[in-house]
Amino acid sequence: MEMLMNLLLLSEKYASVVSLNLFVTLLCACIVIGHLLEENRWMNESITAIAIGLCTGCVILLTTGGTSSRLLVFSEDLFFIYLLPPIIFNAGFQVKRKQFFQNFTTIMLFGVVGTLVSFAIVSLGATQILRRMNIGSLDIADYLAIGTIFSATDSVCTLQVLNQDQTPLLYSLVFGEGVVNDATSVVLFNAIQSFDLTRINSSTALQLLVNFLYLFTVSTLLGVFAGLLSAYIIRKLYFGRHSTDREVALMMLMAYLSYMMSELFQLSAILTVFFCGIVMSHYTWHNVTKQSQITTKQTFATLSFISEIFIFLYVGMDALDIEKWKVVSSSPGKSIGVSSILLGLVLVGRAAFVFPLSFVANLIKKTPGDKITFRQQIIIWWAGLIRGAVSVALAYKKFTTAGYTQLPGNAMMITSTITVVLFSTVVFGMLTKPLLRLLIPHSQLTRSFSSDQWSTSKSFRIPLLGNGQGSETHQHETTRPRSLKELISRLDVHRYWRKFDDSFLRPTFGGRGFTPELPQEQLSPRAG
Amino acid sequence: MEMLMNLLLLSEKYASVVSLNLFVTLLCACIVIGHLLEENRWMNESITAIAIGLCTGCVILLTTGGTSSRLLVFSEDLFFIYLLPPIIFNAGFQVKRKQFFQNFTTIMLFGVVGTLVSFAIVSLGATQILRRMNIGSLDIADYLAIGTIFSATDSVCTLQVLNQDQTPLLYSLVFGEGVVNDATSVVLFNAIQSFDLTRINSSTALQLLVNFLYLFTVSTLLGVFAGLLSAYIIRKLYFGRHSTDREVALMMLMAYLSYMMSELFQLSAILTVFFCGIVMSHYTWHNVTKQSQITTKQTFATLSFISEIFIFLYVGMDALDIEKWKVVSSSPGKSIGVSSILLGLVLVGRAAFVFPLSFVANLIKKTPGDKITFRQQIIIWWAGLIRGAVSVALAYKKFTTAGYTQLPGNAMMITSTITVVLFSTVVFGMLTKPLLRLLIPHSQLTRSFSSDQWSTSKSFRIPLLGNGQGSETHQHETTRPRSLKELISRLDVHRYWRKFDDSFLRPTFGGRGFTPELPQEQLSPRAG
Repeated sequence: MEMLMNLLLLSEKYASVVSLNLFVTLLCACIVIGHLLEENRWMNESITAIAIGLCTGCVILLTTGGTSSRLLVFSEDLFFIYLLPPIIFNAGFQVKRKQFFQNFTTIMLFGVVGTLVSFAIVSLGATQILRRMNIGSLDIADYLAIGTIFSATDSVCTLQVLNQDQTPLLYSLVFGEGVVNDATSVVLFNAIQSFDLTRINSSTALQLLVNFLYLFTVSTLLGVFAGLLSAYIIRKLYFGRHSTDREVALMMLMAYLSYMMSELFQLSAILTVFFCGIVMSHYTWHNVTKQSQITTKQTFATLSFISEIFIFLYVGMDALDIEKWKVVSSSPGKSIGVSSILLGLVLVGRAAFVFPLSFVANLIKKTPGDKITFRQQIIIWWAGLIRGAVSVALAYKKFTTAGYTQLPGNAMMITSTITVVLFSTVVFGMLTKPLLRLLIPHSQLTRSFSSDQWSTSKSFRIPLLGNGQGSETHQHETTRPRSLKELISRLDVHRYWRKFDDSFLRPTFGGRGFTPELPQEQLSPRAG
Repeated sequence: MEMLMNLLLLSEKYASVVSLNLFVTLLCACIVIGHLLEENRWMNESITAIAIGLCTGCVILLTTGGTSSRLLVFSEDLFFIYLLPPIIFNAGFQVKRKQFFQNFTTIMLFGVVGTLVSFAIVSLGATQILRRMNIGSLDIADYLAIGTIFSATDSVCTLQVLNQDQTPLLYSLVFGEGVVNDATSVVLFNAIQSFDLTRINSSTALQLLVNFLYLFTVSTLLGVFAGLLSAYIIRKLYFGRHSTDREVALMMLMAYLSYMMSELFQLSAILTVFFCGIVMSHYTWHNVTKQSQITTKQTFATLSFISEIFIFLYVGMDALDIEKWKVVSSSPGKSIGVSSILLGLVLVGRAAFVFPLSFVANLIKKTPGDKITFRQQIIIWWAGLIRGAVSVALAYKKFTTAGYTQLPGNAMMITSTITVVLFSTVVFGMLTKPLLRLLIPHSQLTRSFSSDQWSTSKSFRIPLLGNGQGSETHQHETTRPRSLKELISRLDVHRYWRKFDDSFLRPTFGGRGFTPELPQEQLSPRAG
């Protein structure tokens, strides 16, 4: 280790090789240790990765004599361009589509109205309280940015603490909210930069609404278009005949392309790639060979898994970066104060919309089985409290230049963000599993430690996983329609969609039952 | 396109997003067009990618008014750290191990002695001829570097023009030579920098030999160690029980780690990752679940496929870089002259060792079936003539600083390298398929266009693919032992290895027949 650290200072090129080595080794360590700790009720992969990151940071800090704790400088580009896309795409690819679309109204309510409420409370609270603490020169745009940074639920963290198979309703609500509020965040972020925020009137509000609708629609359509295009190309050109590599490569590249296109046109890339994932698993996935089906399911999950660990390891290692702590070290009390206030605002801001909006959502839903119980509301509130790498990346984007800052106010914001992220991920994350066990009767939970395996195997035992049509209803007791009227209306929406899908979309783009059995299947039919 | 190009100039961050978009789009285009052209006897994927790269370069050149033709600046780091490892690892993972080890002596002869002969001829020729052409200030080290750059067979190109299933012997000879001569190149490259080359005597030669043996042994052992470690960890911790993602992630990361470790210790990373691939497919692959087996086979192939297209697209686009051509545009005749001379030297240098060394190899082999026929020698000579991205990367490393140069001599070397690479890839590459048809009787070739599919499917129909033991001999008619004596000696080596493998290695590291059937297999046994 010490030898490695001395070498680290030799040359930049060599240093990057050393860093990569150490980083890949740590990733391997995270996987092995995460595997060993899996049955532990307190730990999850993200906490393990953060802990390993922190330990490594300490070791580097000691061996370099307190000059550096980072192997790689945190870059928002690395995060937004390479690490985030596979995670969100995989979430869309593996999501239970039926569950997701059934709760669409609630998800939109949480993602749009909820995020606005949370944003308003955090911004207002920060302006009122932090302004009196004399922490350096922060203007109104900075306070609004703090609102954006701390109002965004981290979809990556949600994936870590909630399980799609154990608690499908909660998962789709909290994760769906995380995806939708990305669009809200983009609109807010652009609004902060382009509008004169001292004079907000009804026309500005209307403009924001139109803006949001535009962004939401166009981002979604782009994702759907990319997905359908991939389905069409693979179906028409019949790739599997010659090479399964091409199918897998094309699916990967087109998914990534949808994300980058969305970035290019300054849309919500997260929303785009999420819907691209949904469409690809509904159409494209059925057009490829059995081998490619297994490969894509697994590969997307693996890439997402590696990216997640990478992010948490990164946040853990970056937390100890000495430069920023030096700037704020003159006033440790103030730093702790700011972090606590922000954490408090996050708690209040989320509570202020989860409980009222759940009440509203329950008013719309007429059957008791569909309603969100108070216990579930607590978990929705709790699981969405975690702030993660997205917050860190946004804070870096706003308050630093290429990862560095010397302004005391900005440095304070960075260290406070890191403190909030570490605290919420570790403490809130650790308490989520016990809280779930406490609030949700054990019989409703699948055994936690086998969930990964179970989810993967299920997707092959029940090839219709999340297929959105029939034969799946029995899985979700809570969403079974109770009244005749509701049953009819639900069947109507379903029937229309199904009719449209079966008569127009599937014949063109393929899908379950609309793709001829390929002659060169290598796996026995039983395997599918 | 024009709109995109105008945006390109807006800001660096935005430009990188635009570049990535365009680049990913082009990758998709290459896959689709490559698929459509597959049955064409002249084209292959690399030529398609180079052609698309050249076209794009032209369009960019026109739209930017002749100021730029590159979307991304060529970086050796990108090439050596990210693109090359998956290609070489996959080659090791999918290689027919039996064929490879049976021809090991010949491969070493070609890879070590052959590369030295070729290096000597190209260096000497370049020194003698180019020095008289007054092309700028090049010293002896530069001429020796030219020898290294143009004596290295490009393993990536070999994969494109020769097919493992069609011509297993030729493939393993030419590709094996490409892997082994990487170690030779590293030794030569280091020797050029550390020795006083004006006074070469027997002690220097001995030192070089010791150096080579050290590099070859340590690089190989590192790869074997990484492979065995991954097998041991996955076997002991029984990863599949909880999550197949972890298995796949760990295999990917450990393979990459072996490459980076080798880079760190300045060994031959190509050799390391190649042997890591061999060991992983012999042991680790048998310890993972059926799903992971399919996933790893396909994913490694896909990643390798994407990297290959990426490289050729890159070389095509980079070829038109206006900066370097401007420097040499004052003397176009001289540039063409230098390129032709280098191309001639490559032809002579390779002929000078392929035919004599094949003669030597045939002397050692006693059965007529094992001997390399003259027709095969011609193909070995021809297929190894192609110079590709490795040459470009080495030329950039030697003759530019971060992709740019102003010295006329250096610019001349870069443009000549690009000319040789383009010419050899396109012309030699195009002629390889017809040459093969001409020299090798058609009945011995599998139908070309179904080869990919065939190779993948075969690996599941015959789960022992390249397993190195028994039951495979019937596949390789040409290597079947003909004399009783040879049969005995071959069986002896085989028997000893098998005994050692069965009594020590497999019980510890797993492998075919030594891994218990996992209880949670999702696929029917027939699928394996």
